[in-house]
Amino acid sequence: MSTVMKPINGAESLISTLVASGVDVAFTNPGTSEMHFVAALGRVEGMRAILCLFEGVVTGMADGYGRMKRAPAATLLHLGPGLAYGLANLHNARRAATPIVNIVGDHATYHAQYDAPLTSDVIGFARPVSSWVHMSMSAKTVAADGARAVQAARVAPGQIATLILPADTAWDEGSGAASALPVAAAATVSPRAVDEAAQLLRNGKRTAILLRGSVLEEASLETAGRIKAQSGARIMCDTIVPRLTRGAGVVEVERVPYFAEQIVDYFKDIEQLILVGAKPPVSFFAYPGKASWCLPEGCKVHYLAHVHEDGPGALDALADALRAPSEPVGRVDLRRPELPQGPLNAYTIGQVIGHFLPDNAIVVDEAATSARGTLKFTAAASRHDHMGLTGGSLGMGIPVASGAAVACPDRKVVCLQGDGGAMYTVQALWTQARENLDVTTVIFNNRAYGILRVELERVGAENPGPKSLSLLDLTNPELDWVSLGRGLGVESSRATTAEELADQFQSAMKGRGPRLIEAVM
Amino acid sequence: MSTVMKPINGAESLISTLVASGVDVAFTNPGTSEMHFVAALGRVEGMRAILCLFEGVVTGMADGYGRMKRAPAATLLHLGPGLAYGLANLHNARRAATPIVNIVGDHATYHAQYDAPLTSDVIGFARPVSSWVHMSMSAKTVAADGARAVQAARVAPGQIATLILPADTAWDEGSGAASALPVAAAATVSPRAVDEAAQLLRNGKRTAILLRGSVLEEASLETAGRIKAQSGARIMCDTIVPRLTRGAGVVEVERVPYFAEQIVDYFKDIEQLILVGAKPPVSFFAYPGKASWCLPEGCKVHYLAHVHEDGPGALDALADALRAPSEPVGRVDLRRPELPQGPLNAYTIGQVIGHFLPDNAIVVDEAATSARGTLKFTAAASRHDHMGLTGGSLGMGIPVASGAAVACPDRKVVCLQGDGGAMYTVQALWTQARENLDVTTVIFNNRAYGILRVELERVGAENPGPKSLSLLDLTNPELDWVSLGRGLGVESSRATTAEELADQFQSAMKGRGPRLIEAVM
Repeated sequence: MSTVMKPINGAESLISTLVASGVDVAFTNPGTSEMHFVAALGRVEGMRAILCLFEGVVTGMADGYGRMKRAPAATLLHLGPGLAYGLANLHNARRAATPIVNIVGDHATYHAQYDAPLTSDVIGFARPVSSWVHMSMSAKTVAADGARAVQAARVAPGQIATLILPADTAWDEGSGAASALPVAAAATVSPRAVDEAAQLLRNGKRTAILLRGSVLEEASLETAGRIKAQSGARIMCDTIVPRLTRGAGVVEVERVPYFAEQIVDYFKDIEQLILVGAKPPVSFFAYPGKASWCLPEGCKVHYLAHVHEDGPGALDALADALRAPSEPVGRVDLRRPELPQGPLNAYTIGQVIGHFLPDNAIVVDEAATSARGTLKFTAAASRHDHMGLTGGSLGMGIPVASGAAVACPDRKVVCLQGDGGAMYTVQALWTQARENLDVTTVIFNNRAYGILRVELERVGAENPGPKSLSLLDLTNPELDWVSLGRGLGVESSRATTAEELADQFQSAMKGRGPRLIEAVM
Repeated sequence: MSTVMKPINGAESLISTLVASGVDVAFTNPGTSEMHFVAALGRVEGMRAILCLFEGVVTGMADGYGRMKRAPAATLLHLGPGLAYGLANLHNARRAATPIVNIVGDHATYHAQYDAPLTSDVIGFARPVSSWVHMSMSAKTVAADGARAVQAARVAPGQIATLILPADTAWDEGSGAASALPVAAAATVSPRAVDEAAQLLRNGKRTAILLRGSVLEEASLETAGRIKAQSGARIMCDTIVPRLTRGAGVVEVERVPYFAEQIVDYFKDIEQLILVGAKPPVSFFAYPGKASWCLPEGCKVHYLAHVHEDGPGALDALADALRAPSEPVGRVDLRRPELPQGPLNAYTIGQVIGHFLPDNAIVVDEAATSARGTLKFTAAASRHDHMGLTGGSLGMGIPVASGAAVACPDRKVVCLQGDGGAMYTVQALWTQARENLDVTTVIFNNRAYGILRVELERVGAENPGPKSLSLLDLTNPELDWVSLGRGLGVESSRATTAEELADQFQSAMKGRGPRLIEAVM
C-alpha cells in the first residue's frame, strides 16, 4: 500500500486504512496541523485529493459524492474552526443520510493544554452533526480508529463519522494499515410489518405510501408502481429528498407540497399513510396559527420500513404479499417541453432546461422559489436523478453538484442555483475549474431572497416597510455572476431571454467541463 | 421606543431592549424563522440593520465592530446551520475578547418536536464559542433575556453571548422593553499584585512586560513606556493581538515572533515575565521536536492583571509604585518609508502602504506570510490601530475591516488580505459596496497558501512531492481578484509593479468608499 522506506507514520497508516476500506477520494482544505496528512497523500497510493477553497465546499462536495456513490468520501478539515465552516453542509448531509468520514486535524495531544489560539472544543463542534465522533490519542491506534470511522459512516442508510486527528498521531510512528471492518446490511423489516401494510392496502381506505432513501431509485419505484397498480395507493415523496430518479421511463412519484397549509390540504382525504424510510409529513417551518403536524386527525400511520431498515426489500416483500402485477402504473413517457420565447421566468427557464436535459443527467436543486418551473418541465424530460436541499441550509447547490460530478464523471450535472444561496459557497466554482468537472450551473438571478419575501408575508408580518424589505433584497449592488464566475475560472455567460438561454444551455449540454449561465429573471 | 399600535410582540420587545441597552447595530443574514425580527426592525426605532450574504461575514463584522467600539453589536442568524457558518469568526472573536450578542432564530418551541429539516442542536453549536447561552422559552421573557445577554457580553474584557429565539417567542405578545442591566467594571487588581510587580522591576533581573487587551491602546502604552523608563523592562505584545495602537507618536511595543524556535530564542535571556491581560507565550502550533512552552526554565511568571481585570488601572498603579517619570521612552517619531520601484513583494507593498497610510487609519491584517513587510514599514508611519487574526481561523480580514468601518465611519480602514484567506468570506465586499464602507482591501496575491508551504517543510514532511504541493497551490486556475471584486460591486484594480500600486493606493487613500487592489506578487 505504501512506497515509503522509513517507518510508516500515523497519517500514512490512516490513509492506507481509508483506501483499504474503500474511501479513495478526499475533499480537502488543510492547514498546518494537517501537513503530515497532506504529505502522506503524496506517499500513499490510491487516494484522490481535491482542494477546495472553503470548508463549506469540502463538506458539500462530500455530500454530493456520497449521495451518488452511496459510499463515503473523506473530508480533511483544519481544527475546530475549519470543521465549523463545514458544519452547515454537514447538517444538510445528515438530513440526506449521506455517508461521510470527516478527518479533522487538531493540535498535538500534548499541545492542547497550552490553549494556543486555534484550540477549541472540536468534539463539541462535531457532535451536533455526527453519528460517530472520536479523537485519536496515539499514532499506533489511528489506523484502527479510521477503520471504525468508515464502518460507522456505512451504517445504513448512511451516517456522518468524525475522526479527530491530533497532529502527533499523524506524525508519530504508526501501525500500518488496519483492515476494513465489516459493514452490516440494512436491517430486514419484520414480516408482520409487511403483512400489516398489505392488509391496509386491501381494506379499501384511501392510502398513500411515502418513500424516502434508496427506494426513490428506479428499481424500487417500479415496485411501488406495481403496488399502486394492485392497490390504488398513491405514491409520494417529501417536498425535498436527497435523491430521486425521475423523467422518461421512470415511475412517477407525487411530491408533497412545501407550505404547511398546502400539505394539510394535500393530505386531507388520506386515511392511511404507509412510510418507507420516511417520517410523517410536517411543516418545514412553524407559522402563527398554522399546523405543524399536517396529517388529518385519525389518519393511520404505518411504518413499513424505518429509515435504517431495508426499504427496497420491504417494497419487494409487499409487492409479493399483494400479488402485484409485473407491470407498474405511472411510468412516464418522454415529453420534452417546447422551447419558449421572450422573457425569462421560473417557467421559461424550466422549459429550456427540460428541453435540452440529456439522458442520465444529475440535477441538483437549490433554486428555492425559482425551482417550480424546472420541476414541472423536467417531470417528463429525459431520465435524471434529482437532489434537493435536505437540511434547508443554503450553500449546498454548487458544492453538491461538484461532488456528484466527481462521483459520476460520465454524467452531465446541472445545478439549479438561486442567487441568494449561491453566495454561501460560490468558491466551489474554482474547484470545478481546477478538476474540469462537467457541471453547468444555472444561476436564477431574481436579485432577492425570493423565498423570504413570501415568508415575511406568510408569518403575518404586516406592512413590513422598506427597512425590513431591504434585508431581503440583493440589489444595491447587483451581483454580476458572469464576473464572479470568470473570477473563479469558470466559463460564464448571461442570458436575458429564453432564446439566449436556449443557445447557451444547449451549448453547455453539448460541451464538457464547467459552465455558468446567469439567467436574469 | 416603539411606534406600533397593536400589542408589542416578542421581537419588538427584544429589539427595544437591545437598543435601550446600547446595542444599536445588527449584522444580519436572516431566514424564515427570523421574519418577525426582520419586520420588527422596521417598526422599532434605533437599530441599524446591515445585510450580509454569508454568516461568516455577519460574525466577522460584529468582531471588527466590537473591537473598535469596545461595545457589542448584535448578529441575526438563521437557526443552527446559520450560526454554524458564523462559528469560525466567532472563534476569532472569542480569542479577541470581543463583546458580541448573537441572536439566533430557531423553530417555534412547539415545532421542535417534529424534527423538521432545519431542526438542530443550536445550543450545541453555540456552546464552544459562547460564554453565555440561553434559549428563550416565552415572548414574555425574551426582553429580559435580551438584557441579560447584553450584560453577559459586556463582562470584562468582552464575551460572546448567544440568545436563541424560537419563532413563537418573536411573534407572540411580549412584555415591552426591559431595562438595561448594570455592567460591572473590570476587577481592580490587588495591591499585592502591584507591589510584587514593583519589587520584580527593582531586583535588577532581565524583565519583560507582556501586554494584551485595552492596555495596547495609546494611554496605557504611555504608562508602559514610563515604566520602561524607570525600570528598563522590555514592553511586548503577542504575535497576534486583537488591537494595537502603533505608529508615529505612540510608544512602541515589541512583537513576539511567530514560530516556536523564534519565540524560544526571543525569550532566552528573560528572567522575569510580567503579564497584563496576557498569557505566557506558547507556540501557535506544535511541531515535532520543538517546544510548545516557550519560556526558559526558571523564568518567573507574574500575573499583574488577569484577562478579566483592569489592566490600564494596574499599569497606572505600577507606574505610581515605581515613581516612574512622566515621560515615556520609546515614543515613535514619524518616518514614512520611501516609495519603492519595480516588482511587488511583501516589502515593496509594505513601503507603499506605509508611505500613504493616513493618520488615524485602522489596519486589519490577514496577510499571513505577506504581512511582514507591511508590519515593518508601518511601524513608524502615521498613527493607526492594527488588528490581527486572533483565533487563527482564516476569513476574518475583509469582514473585520468592514465591521470596523461601520464602527468608525470617519477613519480609513485598510485591509491587508492574503489571497488564500480572502476566499473564505469574500462576500463581505458586497456589504462594503452596499453600505459604502470606507475600506481599501489590498489582496496579496501570491497564488498560494504561502504559510502552508513554510509549514509543510517545518513539520518535517520531507520531499512532499507534486501531489501534496498542489494542495497548497492556488494556480490552476488563477483567481482573478479584479473580476471577483467587480462582481461584488466594489471598484477594483490590479497592480503588478510598485509604481502601479502607489498610484492605485494613493488614489484609494484620497477617496472614500470601498476599493479593492490586487497586488500581484
